[in-house]
Amino acid sequence: MTKQTIRLLMPQWQGGNNPNYSFGAELLAWLAPDNDQPLIHVPVQAYDGTPLENENGTYGRKQLLEQLTAAHHIISAHKPDRIVMFGGDCLVEQAPFAYLNERYSGELGLVWIDAHSDLARIVGYDYGHTLPLGNLLGEGDEEFAKHVKIPLKPENVFLAGLEAPTEQDTEIIRRLGIKTAGTQELMKSTESIKDWIKQSNIKHLAIHLDLDVLDPTAFRSLLFANPELPYDFSAAGTMQMSGLLNLIKELSEETDVVGLGITEHMPWDSINLKKLLGEIPILNK
Amino acid sequence: MTKQTIRLLMPQWQGGNNPNYSFGAELLAWLAPDNDQPLIHVPVQAYDGTPLENENGTYGRKQLLEQLTAAHHIISAHKPDRIVMFGGDCLVEQAPFAYLNERYSGELGLVWIDAHSDLARIVGYDYGHTLPLGNLLGEGDEEFAKHVKIPLKPENVFLAGLEAPTEQDTEIIRRLGIKTAGTQELMKSTESIKDWIKQSNIKHLAIHLDLDVLDPTAFRSLLFANPELPYDFSAAGTMQMSGLLNLIKELSEETDVVGLGITEHMPWDSINLKKLLGEIPILNK
Repeated sequence: MTKQTIRLLMPQWQGGNNPNYSFGAELLAWLAPDNDQPLIHVPVQAYDGTPLENENGTYGRKQLLEQLTAAHHIISAHKPDRIVMFGGDCLVEQAPFAYLNERYSGELGLVWIDAHSDLARIVGYDYGHTLPLGNLLGEGDEEFAKHVKIPLKPENVFLAGLEAPTEQDTEIIRRLGIKTAGTQELMKSTESIKDWIKQSNIKHLAIHLDLDVLDPTAFRSLLFANPELPYDFSAAGTMQMSGLLNLIKELSEETDVVGLGITEHMPWDSINLKKLLGEIPILNK
Repeated sequence: MTKQTIRLLMPQWQGGNNPNYSFGAELLAWLAPDNDQPLIHVPVQAYDGTPLENENGTYGRKQLLEQLTAAHHIISAHKPDRIVMFGGDCLVEQAPFAYLNERYSGELGLVWIDAHSDLARIVGYDYGHTLPLGNLLGEGDEEFAKHVKIPLKPENVFLAGLEAPTEQDTEIIRRLGIKTAGTQELMKSTESIKDWIKQSNIKHLAIHLDLDVLDPTAFRSLLFANPELPYDFSAAGTMQMSGLLNLIKELSEETDVVGLGITEHMPWDSINLKKLLGEIPILNK
Protein backbone atom coordinates (compact mmCIF):
# COMPACT_ATOMS: atom_id res chain seq x y z
CA MET A 1 0.00 0.00 0.00
CA THR A 2 1.24 3.47 -0.81
CA LYS A 3 2.11 5.48 2.25
CA GLN A 4 0.15 8.68 2.64
CA THR A 5 2.32 11.77 3.05
CA ILE A 6 0.95 15.17 4.00
CA ARG A 7 2.71 18.52 3.99
CA LEU A 8 1.92 20.97 6.77
CA LEU A 9 2.58 24.69 6.48
CA MET A 10 2.75 26.17 9.97
CA PRO A 11 3.87 29.81 9.83
CA GLN A 12 4.34 29.99 13.58
CA TRP A 13 6.41 32.94 14.76
CA GLN A 14 5.51 33.16 18.43
CA GLY A 15 8.06 30.49 19.43
CA GLY A 16 10.85 32.90 18.52
CA ASN A 17 8.79 36.09 18.94
CA ASN A 18 9.75 37.20 15.44
CA PRO A 19 7.01 37.70 12.80
CA ASN A 20 9.52 37.10 10.01
CA TYR A 21 9.26 33.36 10.68
CA SER A 22 5.79 33.42 9.11
CA PHE A 23 7.01 34.70 5.77
CA GLY A 24 9.95 32.29 5.94
CA ALA A 25 7.47 29.40 6.18
CA GLU A 26 5.43 30.62 3.19
CA LEU A 27 8.52 31.01 1.02
CA LEU A 28 9.84 27.60 2.09
CA ALA A 29 6.59 25.91 1.03
CA TRP A 30 6.68 27.81 -2.28
CA LEU A 31 10.23 26.59 -2.96
CA ALA A 32 9.41 22.92 -2.36
CA PRO A 33 9.04 20.65 -5.39
CA ASP A 34 5.47 20.14 -6.58
CA ASN A 35 3.98 16.71 -6.24
CA ASP A 36 0.71 15.15 -5.12
CA GLN A 37 1.34 15.60 -1.40
CA PRO A 38 -1.45 17.86 -0.09
CA LEU A 39 -0.31 21.09 1.54
CA ILE A 40 -2.38 21.81 4.63
CA HIS A 41 -2.23 25.11 6.51
CA VAL A 42 -2.12 24.96 10.28
CA PRO A 43 -3.90 28.07 11.60
CA VAL A 44 -1.54 30.46 13.32
CA GLN A 45 -2.46 33.78 14.88
CA ALA A 46 -0.85 36.30 12.57
CA TYR A 47 1.25 39.12 13.99
CA ASP A 48 -0.96 42.18 14.44
CA GLY A 49 1.44 44.46 16.26
CA THR A 50 0.45 43.37 19.76
CA PRO A 51 3.51 42.39 21.80
CA LEU A 52 3.41 38.82 23.10
CA GLU A 53 3.00 38.35 26.83
CA ASN A 54 5.62 36.47 28.77
CA GLU A 55 3.51 33.83 30.49
CA ASN A 56 5.35 31.69 32.99
CA GLY A 57 8.68 31.98 31.18
CA THR A 58 7.44 31.69 27.60
CA TYR A 59 6.38 34.52 25.31
CA GLY A 60 3.06 33.71 23.66
CA ARG A 61 2.53 30.52 25.69
CA LYS A 62 -1.24 30.69 25.18
CA GLN A 63 -1.02 31.04 21.38
CA LEU A 64 1.68 28.38 21.14
CA LEU A 65 -0.43 25.87 23.06
CA GLU A 66 -3.49 26.68 20.94
CA GLN A 67 -1.50 26.23 17.74
CA LEU A 68 0.02 22.99 19.00
CA THR A 69 -3.49 21.71 19.61
CA ALA A 70 -4.62 22.85 16.14
CA ALA A 71 -1.69 20.98 14.56
CA HIS A 72 -2.63 17.82 16.50
CA HIS A 73 -6.25 18.09 15.33
CA ILE A 74 -5.24 18.46 11.69
CA ILE A 75 -2.86 15.53 11.87
CA SER A 76 -5.51 13.42 13.63
CA ALA A 77 -7.98 14.27 10.88
CA HIS A 78 -5.62 12.95 8.19
CA LYS A 79 -3.83 10.13 10.07
CA PRO A 80 -0.92 10.18 7.61
CA ASP A 81 1.96 7.73 7.44
CA ARG A 82 4.46 10.47 6.76
CA ILE A 83 4.56 14.20 7.54
CA VAL A 84 6.56 17.03 6.03
CA MET A 85 6.41 20.19 8.16
CA PHE A 86 7.33 23.63 6.84
CA GLY A 87 7.99 26.06 9.72
CA GLY A 88 8.03 28.51 11.27
CA ASP A 89 10.01 28.43 14.47
CA CYS A 90 11.39 25.11 15.76
CA LEU A 91 8.45 24.44 18.07
CA VAL A 92 6.34 23.47 15.02
CA GLU A 93 8.13 20.10 15.15
CA GLN A 94 6.44 18.95 18.33
CA ALA A 95 3.01 17.91 17.00
CA PRO A 96 4.15 15.95 13.91
CA PHE A 97 6.95 14.08 15.67
CA ALA A 98 4.79 13.28 18.73
CA TYR A 99 2.16 11.88 16.33
CA LEU A 100 4.71 9.87 14.35
CA ASN A 101 6.08 8.33 17.53
CA GLU A 102 2.56 7.13 18.37
CA ARG A 103 2.03 6.03 14.77
CA TYR A 104 5.17 3.88 14.95
CA SER A 105 4.49 2.41 18.40
CA GLY A 106 6.92 4.54 20.38
CA GLU A 107 9.86 3.37 18.29
CA LEU A 108 10.40 6.48 16.12
CA GLY A 109 13.99 7.49 15.52
CA LEU A 110 14.77 11.20 15.36
CA VAL A 111 17.79 12.98 13.94
CA TRP A 112 17.90 16.55 15.21
CA ILE A 113 19.97 18.50 12.68
CA ASP A 114 20.46 21.79 14.44
CA ALA A 115 23.22 24.08 15.72
CA HIS A 116 21.34 23.99 19.06
CA SER A 117 20.01 21.18 21.21
CA ASP A 118 16.48 22.59 21.76
CA LEU A 119 16.42 20.52 24.94
CA ALA A 120 15.76 23.08 27.63
CA ARG A 121 14.88 26.57 28.68
CA ILE A 122 17.74 29.07 28.32
CA VAL A 123 18.03 31.54 31.21
CA GLY A 124 17.13 35.03 30.02
CA TYR A 125 15.70 33.84 26.67
CA ASP A 126 12.04 33.02 27.27
CA TYR A 127 11.09 31.60 23.88
CA GLY A 128 9.24 28.39 23.18
CA HIS A 129 11.51 27.39 20.30
CA THR A 130 14.33 26.54 22.72
CA LEU A 131 12.72 23.33 23.91
CA PRO A 132 10.76 21.27 21.35
CA LEU A 133 13.18 18.35 21.68
CA GLY A 134 12.95 18.54 25.46
CA ASN A 135 9.15 18.38 25.19
CA LEU A 136 9.31 15.41 22.81
CA LEU A 137 11.44 13.57 25.39
CA GLY A 138 8.89 14.27 28.13
CA GLU A 139 11.11 16.92 29.71
CA GLY A 140 11.21 20.55 28.55
CA ASP A 141 8.14 22.52 29.61
CA GLU A 142 5.47 20.56 31.47
CA GLU A 143 2.53 22.29 29.80
CA PHE A 144 3.90 21.51 26.34
CA ALA A 145 5.33 18.09 27.19
CA LYS A 146 1.97 16.78 28.36
CA HIS A 147 0.77 16.97 24.73
CA VAL A 148 3.32 14.28 23.85
CA LYS A 149 1.39 11.08 24.57
CA ILE A 150 4.37 8.77 24.10
CA PRO A 151 7.68 10.52 24.73
CA LEU A 152 10.49 9.56 22.39
CA LYS A 153 13.13 7.20 23.73
CA PRO A 154 16.35 9.17 24.32
CA GLU A 155 18.36 6.35 22.77
CA ASN A 156 16.33 6.84 19.57
CA VAL A 157 17.45 10.49 19.27
CA PHE A 158 20.64 11.70 17.58
CA LEU A 159 21.85 15.32 17.69
CA ALA A 160 23.65 16.24 14.46
CA GLY A 161 25.55 19.49 14.05
CA LEU A 162 25.30 20.78 17.62
CA GLU A 163 27.64 23.76 18.12
CA ALA A 164 29.11 24.86 21.44
CA PRO A 165 26.81 22.89 23.78
CA THR A 166 26.01 24.68 27.04
CA GLU A 167 26.67 23.07 30.42
CA GLN A 168 22.96 22.41 30.63
CA ASP A 169 22.99 20.67 27.22
CA THR A 170 25.92 18.53 28.29
CA GLU A 171 24.19 17.53 31.52
CA ILE A 172 20.97 16.46 29.77
CA ILE A 173 22.77 14.68 26.92
CA ARG A 174 24.85 12.67 29.41
CA ARG A 175 21.98 11.95 31.76
CA LEU A 176 19.72 10.70 28.95
CA GLY A 177 22.50 9.06 26.95
CA ILE A 178 21.70 10.88 23.72
CA LYS A 179 24.11 10.29 20.84
CA THR A 180 25.64 13.32 19.13
CA ALA A 181 28.02 14.21 16.31
CA GLY A 182 29.24 17.66 15.37
CA THR A 183 29.35 19.09 11.87
CA GLN A 184 33.10 18.58 11.48
CA GLU A 185 32.79 14.88 12.37
CA LEU A 186 29.73 14.34 10.14
CA MET A 187 31.32 16.06 7.17
CA LYS A 188 34.25 13.65 7.40
CA SER A 189 32.06 10.58 7.81
CA THR A 190 28.44 9.75 8.55
CA GLU A 191 29.40 6.34 9.97
CA SER A 192 28.50 7.24 13.56
CA ILE A 193 24.94 8.15 12.63
CA LYS A 194 24.52 5.12 10.37
CA ASP A 195 25.88 2.84 13.09
CA TRP A 196 23.36 4.34 15.52
CA ILE A 197 20.51 3.57 13.09
CA LYS A 198 21.64 -0.07 12.86
CA GLN A 199 22.41 -0.57 16.53
CA SER A 200 19.18 1.08 17.71
CA ASN A 201 17.27 -0.79 15.03
CA ILE A 202 15.58 2.42 13.77
CA LYS A 203 12.92 1.36 11.26
CA HIS A 204 11.16 4.74 10.98
CA LEU A 205 13.04 7.98 11.15
CA ALA A 206 12.03 11.62 11.48
CA ILE A 207 14.48 14.35 10.52
CA HIS A 208 14.37 17.79 12.09
CA LEU A 209 16.26 20.38 10.10
CA ASP A 210 16.83 23.75 11.71
CA LEU A 211 18.39 25.71 8.86
CA ASP A 212 20.60 27.47 11.40
CA VAL A 213 22.85 24.41 11.29
CA LEU A 214 24.15 25.95 8.05
CA ASP A 215 27.11 28.28 7.84
CA PRO A 216 25.50 31.75 7.76
CA THR A 217 28.09 33.02 5.28
CA ALA A 218 26.96 30.33 2.80
CA PHE A 219 23.23 30.57 3.54
CA ARG A 220 22.20 33.98 4.80
CA SER A 221 18.47 33.45 5.30
CA LEU A 222 18.93 32.92 9.02
CA LEU A 223 18.25 34.86 12.20
CA PHE A 224 22.04 35.03 12.58
CA ALA A 225 22.57 36.72 9.27
CA ASN A 226 20.41 39.84 9.54
CA PRO A 227 22.28 42.38 7.43
CA GLU A 228 21.02 45.18 9.66
CA LEU A 229 21.63 43.68 13.07
CA PRO A 230 24.53 41.46 14.04
CA TYR A 231 23.34 38.62 16.28
CA ASP A 232 25.59 36.77 18.64
CA PHE A 233 23.30 35.35 21.29
CA SER A 234 24.16 31.76 20.44
CA ALA A 235 26.61 29.83 18.29
CA ALA A 236 26.14 29.83 14.51
CA GLY A 237 26.18 26.70 12.37
CA THR A 238 29.09 25.59 10.21
CA MET A 239 27.53 23.05 7.81
CA GLN A 240 27.59 23.58 4.03
CA MET A 241 24.56 22.91 1.80
CA SER A 242 26.28 20.04 -0.03
CA GLY A 243 27.17 18.27 3.21
CA LEU A 244 23.65 18.72 4.53
CA LEU A 245 22.10 17.24 1.39
CA ASN A 246 24.51 14.33 1.51
CA LEU A 247 23.59 13.64 5.14
CA ILE A 248 19.83 13.67 4.42
CA LYS A 249 20.29 11.43 1.37
CA GLU A 250 22.35 8.91 3.32
CA LEU A 251 19.78 8.81 6.12
CA SER A 252 17.05 8.26 3.52
CA GLU A 253 18.94 5.33 2.03
CA GLU A 254 19.66 3.81 5.42
CA THR A 255 16.11 3.71 6.78
CA ASP A 256 12.51 4.77 6.11
CA VAL A 257 12.22 8.54 6.58
CA VAL A 258 8.64 9.19 7.71
CA GLY A 259 9.01 12.76 8.93
CA LEU A 260 10.86 15.87 7.85
CA GLY A 261 10.53 19.28 9.44
CA ILE A 262 12.32 22.36 8.15
CA THR A 263 12.40 25.38 10.43
CA GLU A 264 13.82 28.82 11.21
CA HIS A 265 13.92 30.09 7.62
CA MET A 266 14.45 33.83 7.73
CA PRO A 267 14.99 35.09 4.18
CA TRP A 268 16.15 38.65 4.85
CA ASP A 269 16.55 39.70 1.22
CA SER A 270 13.06 38.54 0.26
CA ILE A 271 11.61 40.09 3.41
CA ASN A 272 13.28 43.42 2.66
CA LEU A 273 12.47 43.30 -1.05
CA LYS A 274 8.82 42.49 -0.33
CA LYS A 275 8.67 45.48 2.01
CA LEU A 276 10.22 47.71 -0.66
CA LEU A 277 7.79 46.49 -3.35
CA GLY A 278 4.91 46.99 -0.94
CA GLU A 279 5.70 50.70 -0.72
CA ILE A 280 6.41 51.54 -4.37
CA PRO A 281 3.50 53.67 -5.60
CA ILE A 282 3.15 52.21 -9.13
CA LEU A 283 2.84 48.70 -7.66
CA ASN A 284 0.10 49.77 -5.29
CA LYS A 285 -2.46 51.62 -7.34
CA MET B 1 -10.09 57.82 -17.09
CA THR B 2 -8.15 55.26 -15.10
CA LYS B 3 -4.77 54.45 -16.55
CA GLN B 4 -4.26 50.84 -17.49
CA THR B 5 -1.22 49.24 -15.91
CA ILE B 6 0.10 45.82 -16.88
CA ARG B 7 2.77 43.74 -15.22
CA LEU B 8 5.13 41.74 -17.38
CA LEU B 9 7.10 38.77 -16.11
CA MET B 10 10.06 38.18 -18.40
CA PRO B 11 12.38 35.53 -16.97
CA GLN B 12 15.07 36.26 -19.52
CA TRP B 13 18.49 34.87 -18.61
CA GLN B 14 20.31 34.92 -21.95
CA GLY B 15 21.29 38.60 -21.60
CA GLY B 16 23.61 37.66 -18.74
CA ASN B 17 24.05 34.00 -19.78
CA ASN B 18 23.01 32.86 -16.32
CA PRO B 19 19.89 30.69 -15.91
CA ASN B 20 19.47 31.89 -12.32
CA TYR B 21 17.96 35.13 -13.66
CA SER B 22 14.83 33.17 -14.59
CA PHE B 23 14.15 32.03 -11.06
CA GLY B 24 14.96 35.53 -9.79
CA ALA B 25 12.21 36.92 -12.02
CA GLU B 26 9.65 34.38 -10.78
CA LEU B 27 10.43 35.10 -7.14
CA LEU B 28 10.34 38.85 -7.73
CA ALA B 29 6.84 38.63 -9.24
CA TRP B 30 5.74 36.43 -6.31
CA LEU B 31 6.99 39.02 -3.82
CA ALA B 32 5.14 41.93 -5.42
CA PRO B 33 1.97 43.19 -3.73
CA ASP B 34 -1.26 41.75 -5.12
CA ASN B 35 -3.61 44.11 -6.91
CA ASP B 36 -5.71 44.13 -10.05
CA GLN B 37 -2.81 44.68 -12.44
CA PRO B 38 -2.70 41.66 -14.76
CA LEU B 39 0.54 39.66 -14.74
CA ILE B 40 1.49 38.63 -18.25
CA HIS B 41 4.28 36.17 -19.02
CA VAL B 42 6.61 37.02 -21.87
CA PRO B 43 7.75 33.74 -23.42
CA VAL B 44 11.41 33.06 -22.87
CA GLN B 45 13.35 30.04 -24.04
CA ALA B 46 14.13 28.18 -20.82
CA TYR B 47 17.63 26.98 -20.12
CA ASP B 48 17.95 23.39 -21.30
CA GLY B 49 21.66 22.85 -20.81
CA THR B 50 22.67 23.94 -24.31
CA PRO B 51 25.41 26.59 -24.14
CA LEU B 52 24.48 29.87 -25.84
CA GLU B 53 26.31 30.75 -29.02
CA ASN B 54 28.30 33.94 -29.21
CA GLU B 55 26.79 35.55 -32.30
CA ASN B 56 28.50 38.69 -33.46
CA GLY B 57 29.61 39.69 -29.95
CA THR B 58 26.50 38.72 -28.04
CA TYR B 59 25.73 35.36 -26.45
CA GLY B 60 22.23 34.23 -27.38
CA ARG B 61 21.66 37.09 -29.83
CA LYS B 62 19.03 35.09 -31.72
CA GLN B 63 16.99 34.22 -28.62
CA LEU B 64 17.31 37.75 -27.24
CA LEU B 65 16.00 39.28 -30.46
CA GLU B 66 13.13 36.78 -30.58
CA GLN B 67 12.21 37.53 -26.98
CA LEU B 68 12.43 41.27 -27.57
CA THR B 69 9.98 40.84 -30.43
CA ALA B 70 7.67 38.73 -28.27
CA ALA B 71 7.65 41.42 -25.59
CA HIS B 72 6.79 44.06 -28.19
CA HIS B 73 3.90 41.94 -29.49
CA ILE B 74 2.47 41.43 -26.02
CA ILE B 75 2.71 45.12 -25.20
CA SER B 76 1.13 46.04 -28.56
CA ALA B 77 -1.73 43.66 -27.83
CA HIS B 78 -2.51 45.43 -24.54
CA LYS B 79 -1.54 49.04 -25.37
CA PRO B 80 -1.17 49.91 -21.67
CA ASP B 81 -0.60 53.36 -20.19
CA ARG B 82 1.83 52.03 -17.65
CA ILE B 83 4.11 48.99 -17.53
CA VAL B 84 5.75 47.18 -14.66
CA MET B 85 8.46 44.75 -15.79
CA PHE B 86 9.84 41.96 -13.63
CA GLY B 87 13.17 40.67 -14.99
CA GLY B 88 15.29 38.87 -15.71
CA ASP B 89 18.48 40.41 -16.97
CA CYS B 90 18.61 44.16 -17.69
CA LEU B 91 17.87 43.78 -21.38
CA VAL B 92 14.20 43.08 -20.53
CA GLU B 93 13.82 46.87 -20.12
CA GLN B 94 14.19 47.64 -23.79
CA ALA B 95 10.71 46.72 -25.09
CA PRO B 96 8.61 48.39 -22.37
CA PHE B 97 10.59 51.62 -22.30
CA ALA B 98 10.74 51.87 -26.11
CA TYR B 99 6.96 51.43 -26.16
CA LEU B 100 6.39 54.00 -23.41
CA ASN B 101 8.51 56.56 -25.27
CA GLU B 102 6.25 56.09 -28.30
CA ARG B 103 3.16 56.18 -26.08
CA TYR B 104 4.27 59.54 -24.64
CA SER B 105 5.30 61.09 -27.96
CA GLY B 106 9.05 60.75 -27.60
CA GLU B 107 9.07 62.74 -24.37
CA LEU B 108 9.50 59.91 -21.85
CA GLY B 109 11.88 60.61 -18.98
CA LEU B 110 14.01 57.73 -17.73
CA VAL B 111 15.88 57.34 -14.47
CA TRP B 112 18.39 54.52 -14.75
CA ILE B 113 19.04 53.33 -11.18
CA ASP B 114 21.98 51.02 -11.64
CA ALA B 115 25.59 50.56 -10.54
CA HIS B 116 26.41 50.35 -14.26
CA SER B 117 25.59 52.54 -17.22
CA ASP B 118 24.36 49.77 -19.57
CA LEU B 119 25.33 52.10 -22.41
CA ALA B 120 27.77 50.06 -24.43
CA ARG B 121 29.48 46.81 -25.16
CA ILE B 122 32.23 45.91 -22.70
CA VAL B 123 35.33 44.41 -24.28
CA GLY B 124 35.67 40.77 -23.31
CA TYR B 125 32.15 40.53 -21.84
CA ASP B 126 29.82 39.65 -24.69
CA TYR B 127 26.47 39.83 -22.94
CA GLY B 128 23.36 41.63 -24.12
CA HIS B 129 22.56 43.05 -20.69
CA THR B 130 25.43 45.52 -20.94
CA LEU B 131 23.66 47.77 -23.42
CA PRO B 132 19.88 48.19 -23.04
CA LEU B 133 20.24 51.90 -22.29
CA GLY B 134 22.52 52.33 -25.31
CA ASN B 135 19.88 50.62 -27.47
CA LEU B 136 17.12 52.86 -26.07
CA LEU B 137 19.20 55.90 -27.05
CA GLY B 138 19.62 54.60 -30.60
CA GLU B 139 23.22 53.60 -29.98
CA GLY B 140 24.27 50.31 -28.41
CA ASP B 141 23.90 47.35 -30.77
CA GLU B 142 22.48 48.13 -34.19
CA GLU B 143 20.37 44.97 -34.42
CA PHE B 144 18.74 45.67 -31.07
CA ALA B 145 18.57 49.45 -31.42
CA LYS B 146 16.57 49.22 -34.63
CA HIS B 147 13.65 47.86 -32.56
CA VAL B 148 13.46 51.22 -30.78
CA LYS B 149 11.18 53.23 -33.08
CA ILE B 150 11.70 56.54 -31.28
CA PRO B 151 15.01 56.68 -29.41
CA LEU B 152 14.89 58.39 -26.02
CA LYS B 153 16.29 61.92 -25.85
CA PRO B 154 19.61 61.82 -23.96
CA GLU B 155 18.59 64.94 -22.03
CA ASN B 156 15.57 62.96 -20.75
CA VAL B 157 17.79 60.29 -19.20
CA PHE B 158 19.33 60.41 -15.72
CA LEU B 159 21.84 57.87 -14.41
CA ALA B 160 21.43 57.33 -10.67
CA GLY B 161 23.89 55.34 -8.61
CA LEU B 162 26.53 54.71 -11.27
CA GLU B 163 29.70 53.30 -9.68
CA ALA B 164 33.20 53.63 -11.12
CA PRO B 165 32.27 54.67 -14.69
CA THR B 166 34.60 53.34 -17.36
CA GLU B 167 36.38 55.63 -19.84
CA GLN B 168 33.84 54.52 -22.40
CA ASP B 169 30.95 55.45 -20.07
CA THR B 170 32.46 58.86 -19.45
CA GLU B 171 32.90 59.50 -23.17
CA ILE B 172 29.28 58.61 -24.02
CA ILE B 173 27.82 60.47 -21.02
CA ARG B 174 29.75 63.64 -22.01
CA ARG B 175 29.06 63.35 -25.71
CA LEU B 176 25.29 62.89 -25.18
CA GLY B 177 25.07 65.26 -22.21
CA ILE B 178 23.42 62.71 -19.90
CA LYS B 179 22.89 63.84 -16.31
CA THR B 180 24.21 61.63 -13.51
CA ALA B 181 24.38 61.48 -9.74
CA GLY B 182 26.20 58.88 -7.67
CA THR B 183 24.76 57.07 -4.66
CA GLN B 184 26.65 59.19 -2.15
CA GLU B 185 25.28 62.40 -3.66
CA LEU B 186 21.71 61.05 -3.93
CA MET B 187 21.69 59.77 -0.38
CA LYS B 188 22.55 63.27 0.85
CA SER B 189 20.00 64.98 -1.37
CA THR B 190 17.76 64.16 -4.31
CA GLU B 191 17.67 67.80 -5.40
CA SER B 192 19.74 67.25 -8.56
CA ILE B 193 17.34 64.63 -9.89
CA LYS B 194 14.25 66.66 -8.95
CA ASP B 195 15.74 69.76 -10.58
CA TRP B 196 16.34 67.72 -13.74
CA ILE B 197 12.67 66.63 -13.77
CA LYS B 198 11.54 70.25 -13.53
CA GLN B 199 14.05 71.71 -15.94
CA SER B 200 13.53 68.99 -18.56
CA ASN B 201 9.78 69.22 -18.02
CA ILE B 202 9.44 65.44 -17.54
CA LYS B 203 5.71 64.65 -17.44
CA HIS B 204 6.01 60.87 -17.74
CA LEU B 205 8.81 58.96 -16.14
CA ALA B 206 10.08 55.39 -16.39
CA ILE B 207 12.30 53.98 -13.67
CA HIS B 208 14.81 51.23 -14.31
CA LEU B 209 15.98 49.51 -11.17
CA ASP B 210 18.92 47.15 -11.45
CA LEU B 211 19.05 45.67 -7.97
CA ASP B 212 22.84 45.63 -8.24
CA VAL B 213 22.77 49.31 -7.30
CA LEU B 214 22.30 48.00 -3.75
CA ASP B 215 25.13 47.35 -1.35
CA PRO B 216 25.69 43.56 -1.67
CA THR B 217 26.39 43.24 2.05
CA ALA B 218 22.89 44.59 2.78
CA PHE B 219 21.10 42.79 -0.06
CA ARG B 220 22.81 39.56 -1.04
CA SER B 221 20.51 38.38 -3.83
CA LEU B 222 22.87 39.71 -6.49
CA LEU B 223 25.30 38.27 -9.01
CA PHE B 224 28.02 39.97 -6.93
CA ALA B 225 27.08 38.16 -3.76
CA ASN B 226 27.34 34.51 -4.76
CA PRO B 227 28.39 32.81 -1.53
CA GLU B 228 30.29 30.18 -3.52
CA LEU B 229 32.08 32.35 -6.03
CA PRO B 230 33.49 35.81 -5.39
CA TYR B 231 32.78 38.12 -8.33
CA ASP B 232 34.82 41.19 -9.09
CA PHE B 233 34.35 41.82 -12.77
CA SER B 234 32.67 45.17 -12.23
CA ALA B 235 32.00 47.60 -9.39
CA ALA B 236 29.36 46.72 -6.78
CA GLY B 237 26.61 49.07 -5.66
CA THR B 238 26.60 51.02 -2.41
CA MET B 239 22.94 52.06 -1.97
CA GLN B 240 20.90 50.96 1.05
CA MET B 241 17.28 49.74 0.77
CA SER B 242 15.91 52.70 2.73
CA GLY B 243 17.64 55.24 0.48
CA LEU B 244 16.44 53.43 -2.63
CA LEU B 245 12.83 53.43 -1.44
CA ASN B 246 13.07 57.09 -0.55
CA LEU B 247 14.40 57.91 -4.04
CA ILE B 248 11.59 56.01 -5.79
CA LYS B 249 8.96 57.62 -3.56
CA GLU B 250 10.29 61.10 -4.22
CA LEU B 251 10.35 60.50 -7.98
CA SER B 252 6.76 59.23 -7.76
CA GLU B 253 5.66 62.41 -5.97
CA GLU B 254 7.50 64.66 -8.40
CA THR B 255 6.05 63.31 -11.64
CA ASP B 256 3.87 60.59 -13.18
CA VAL B 257 5.71 57.30 -13.04
CA VAL B 258 4.47 55.24 -16.00
CA GLY B 259 7.12 52.55 -16.10
CA LEU B 260 9.06 50.52 -13.58
CA GLY B 261 11.44 47.69 -14.40
CA ILE B 262 13.21 45.62 -11.77
CA THR B 263 16.07 43.44 -12.93
CA GLU B 264 19.06 41.26 -12.06
CA HIS B 265 17.49 39.58 -9.02
CA MET B 266 19.65 36.61 -8.11
CA PRO B 267 18.39 35.14 -4.84
CA TRP B 268 21.20 32.72 -4.00
CA ASP B 269 19.70 31.36 -0.79
CA SER B 270 16.35 30.55 -2.41
CA ILE B 271 18.11 29.09 -5.45
CA ASN B 272 20.26 26.86 -3.24
CA LEU B 273 17.39 25.93 -0.93
CA LYS B 274 15.15 25.05 -3.89
CA LYS B 275 17.91 22.80 -5.24
CA LEU B 276 18.27 21.12 -1.84
CA LEU B 277 14.51 20.56 -1.50
CA GLY B 278 14.41 19.23 -5.03
CA GLU B 279 16.78 16.40 -4.05
CA ILE B 280 15.36 15.37 -0.67
CA PRO B 281 13.75 11.95 -1.13
CA ILE B 282 10.65 12.43 1.07
CA LEU B 283 9.73 15.59 -0.87
CA ASN B 284 9.97 13.80 -4.19
CA LYS B 285 7.90 10.66 -3.89
